[in-house]
Amino acid sequence: MTFLETLRAIVGTDHVLTHQLDGYEMDWRGLYRGRALAVALPGSTDQVCAVVAACSAARVAIVPQGGNTGLVGGAVPDQSGRQVLLNLRRMNRVRDLDEKNLTLTVEAGCVLEAVQERAAAAGLLFPLSLAAEGSCTIGGNLASNAGGTQVLRYGNARELCLGLEVVTPDGRVWSGLSGLRKDHSGYDLRQLYIGSEGTLGVITAATLRLFPPPASTMTAWISVPCAGAAIELLSLAQKQLGPTLTGFEIMGREAVALADKHFPQLRAPDAQAYPWHVVLEQSSHLLEATERPQFETMLEAGFERALIADAIVAESAEQAKRLWHVREAIPLAQAKEGANLKHDVSVPISRIPEFLEAVEGALRAALPDIRLVLLGHVGDGNLHYNVQAPEGDTGGAYFARHGDWITRQVYDAVDACGGSFSAEHGVGAFKTDELAHRKDAVALDLMQRIKAALDPLHLMNPGRVLKAVPVDVG
Amino acid sequence: MTFLETLRAIVGTDHVLTHQLDGYEMDWRGLYRGRALAVALPGSTDQVCAVVAACSAARVAIVPQGGNTGLVGGAVPDQSGRQVLLNLRRMNRVRDLDEKNLTLTVEAGCVLEAVQERAAAAGLLFPLSLAAEGSCTIGGNLASNAGGTQVLRYGNARELCLGLEVVTPDGRVWSGLSGLRKDHSGYDLRQLYIGSEGTLGVITAATLRLFPPPASTMTAWISVPCAGAAIELLSLAQKQLGPTLTGFEIMGREAVALADKHFPQLRAPDAQAYPWHVVLEQSSHLLEATERPQFETMLEAGFERALIADAIVAESAEQAKRLWHVREAIPLAQAKEGANLKHDVSVPISRIPEFLEAVEGALRAALPDIRLVLLGHVGDGNLHYNVQAPEGDTGGAYFARHGDWITRQVYDAVDACGGSFSAEHGVGAFKTDELAHRKDAVALDLMQRIKAALDPLHLMNPGRVLKAVPVDVG
Repeated sequence: MTFLETLRAIVGTDHVLTHQLDGYEMDWRGLYRGRALAVALPGSTDQVCAVVAACSAARVAIVPQGGNTGLVGGAVPDQSGRQVLLNLRRMNRVRDLDEKNLTLTVEAGCVLEAVQERAAAAGLLFPLSLAAEGSCTIGGNLASNAGGTQVLRYGNARELCLGLEVVTPDGRVWSGLSGLRKDHSGYDLRQLYIGSEGTLGVITAATLRLFPPPASTMTAWISVPCAGAAIELLSLAQKQLGPTLTGFEIMGREAVALADKHFPQLRAPDAQAYPWHVVLEQSSHLLEATERPQFETMLEAGFERALIADAIVAESAEQAKRLWHVREAIPLAQAKEGANLKHDVSVPISRIPEFLEAVEGALRAALPDIRLVLLGHVGDGNLHYNVQAPEGDTGGAYFARHGDWITRQVYDAVDACGGSFSAEHGVGAFKTDELAHRKDAVALDLMQRIKAALDPLHLMNPGRVLKAVPVDVG
Repeated sequence: MTFLETLRAIVGTDHVLTHQLDGYEMDWRGLYRGRALAVALPGSTDQVCAVVAACSAARVAIVPQGGNTGLVGGAVPDQSGRQVLLNLRRMNRVRDLDEKNLTLTVEAGCVLEAVQERAAAAGLLFPLSLAAEGSCTIGGNLASNAGGTQVLRYGNARELCLGLEVVTPDGRVWSGLSGLRKDHSGYDLRQLYIGSEGTLGVITAATLRLFPPPASTMTAWISVPCAGAAIELLSLAQKQLGPTLTGFEIMGREAVALADKHFPQLRAPDAQAYPWHVVLEQSSHLLEATERPQFETMLEAGFERALIADAIVAESAEQAKRLWHVREAIPLAQAKEGANLKHDVSVPISRIPEFLEAVEGALRAALPDIRLVLLGHVGDGNLHYNVQAPEGDTGGAYFARHGDWITRQVYDAVDACGGSFSAEHGVGAFKTDELAHRKDAVALDLMQRIKAALDPLHLMNPGRVLKAVPVDVG
């Protein structure tokens, strides 16, 4: 039997694809285009084991893929035409819902939105929420430790996962689908697989944490005079709203202006009047009428301390949704405007103003007309430092010329502020050079050792996260 | 230079102890008594590196120790007299407090209570809280992923740590003291060291998460008719109190009776009238007057649904403290009463009643007079399934005869309910057999590979967590 025949025997002829693979081989932004030996679509954990074992025996590398919505080229094959793309989307069953334990066990190929909906159908909340939720899969979310807009209150994907089922690079299953909140029986393997971007094994299922949904939500659009004021306001909100503070998103003036330009129907408030805007969300177990006085006290204190220049509190769920839409429209507006350059970084919250000042100073000094389209999850210290070519410039040539230099300014400032060049999108293929260059050398050595110990043939998503290491495969 | 001379040259003659080592060589319960080659007390990370490197060169094993309050014999040397006990308590400096980032960076030897106090002095909260907080160190808390009474709201030690500094088994430093809430730059090494009980390296410092303290706290003592009612009540409280539910502790009738017997001054409520009692704690950003109606609605619903048999809401901080003291007095009462046998286990919350019924049935059938001194952090699924010899029996011979059988009943029921034989106390030396016997074989293999990759000479706390593996040390 040829290798492809073996794959077909395992997953069925219909589920081994070798033609018209565009949707699998190219990432959704069109930045990475690889060529796969085949796309295999297993329907069960047993099939994943058999495919992985067959690949291991034939020394064929595997690239696991979920919804293919990643931003760092971590889930598309390389150019060799020799890698198997293992797409998990057929594994989309809900295995168990335990209401009293507040857990949901799902297969890796479940689309995030379907997970949210399954929880909601039981009157519960799965809080992971991000732009790609209609197509990304929970396996991909966990492999990349996804963040999103609710991290401030609920944590990253890591904090929302209690157990995993993983197929190891030699085709065995680690059955770690625990619904336990405390389990101290040896090393926490789950934590190692979460965020490892398919380089140590294939996540095939997960047990997720659910929450009772809040009884009320309040949303405010707050314009602030400077980034420092936004940080002070965050401290104030954390103190006055406690654990009910669920979102604290920041947007720069040019980011809001761009959303306003391309999506005027959203009527972005104060688009030009202030340098920074915040979308602040509170969600509570209490009714709005009970929480509202404290919410208003917080806003009043913000005005009094000159942290707030203007504020709009949404008076309906619809208005709240519209305010969030402005935030969400910014990346779409960037795409409409032309070529742009994005950086997903984090710094300690206290150092955000210093970081912003340093990068803006460096960029404006050399490129006075560059447009800074800044937004971020400030409550997590996570900034999307995006830049757009000057007005009227479609950007291609501009970034071909200046892109690397701009990125270096951003990452150097990140380093100077004790931050990370990769906050929530992962390393993938995109940032392996940065990881090799900027990460603590001891940390890199420990990671290489872990990779070699768990994937000695280096067949799991090779060259992703860590640069490929030549291996003697006998 | 002899090996001991080398140690003295590194940390100073006063900080290498070879006599009167009782407080170091014996665990605080007196269950484990080892013999150390020497106790080394380094004063800095550099000194830890040098000691570890010297041990590595001389092929001397190292046992890291903090406050020596562990419950599983994980921080005392073996009997060989050839291990160096590395006690971190001199490393007790606060390195940084970042109020706006809500982080505190401390050395591993800081006592937990001192960490809490440093946070409080800045008007902030470090929520990790457990019985040994006056002597345990934060390094030990992280090495054992400590739990405690606030996990329901704030998580285990793992969730409270953003960054680590670790000395590797070959004497290098991994500088991972990040204050970042999002950092996806390679494998999350921090997660691997947390809970690894000193078997992969020595934690020398940590960056911890702080929180604004709550504005109000309410505490209730609630008597419930059965364990199932306690679980239903937990669901109700989670729904109605949302993230303000901070504690949900359960105690069995005999546990409360024992506390009442030895500490009558605490006036435990309803000691005999009901089979189970709950201490429920809410803490909120709102004033008590604002939260109270919802709290009372929750209690009323509990009464209406017959989940609550009786309830007392503390009317003062002092009364609340007294209620908590009853809970905390139970382990002390057990010690006064005589020999006892303890099990730190977890099961999915939904399966707690089934678990309790199964174990009680098995034990009572064979040992009708055994006393079950049950308590637990039900909100985390964590039960301390403790048993006491029959009334009038001091217990030594009883447990010598029945102890292993009793433990097997408990752990077998845990396995049948999808639980863990080790919830928050760790594996240490005490549960290595259980780990080898009960853990998924693939998981064990992965753990052995990680151990071999990060500590190839097997010099870090050998025989703890994982059983010792013979190593060719050349």
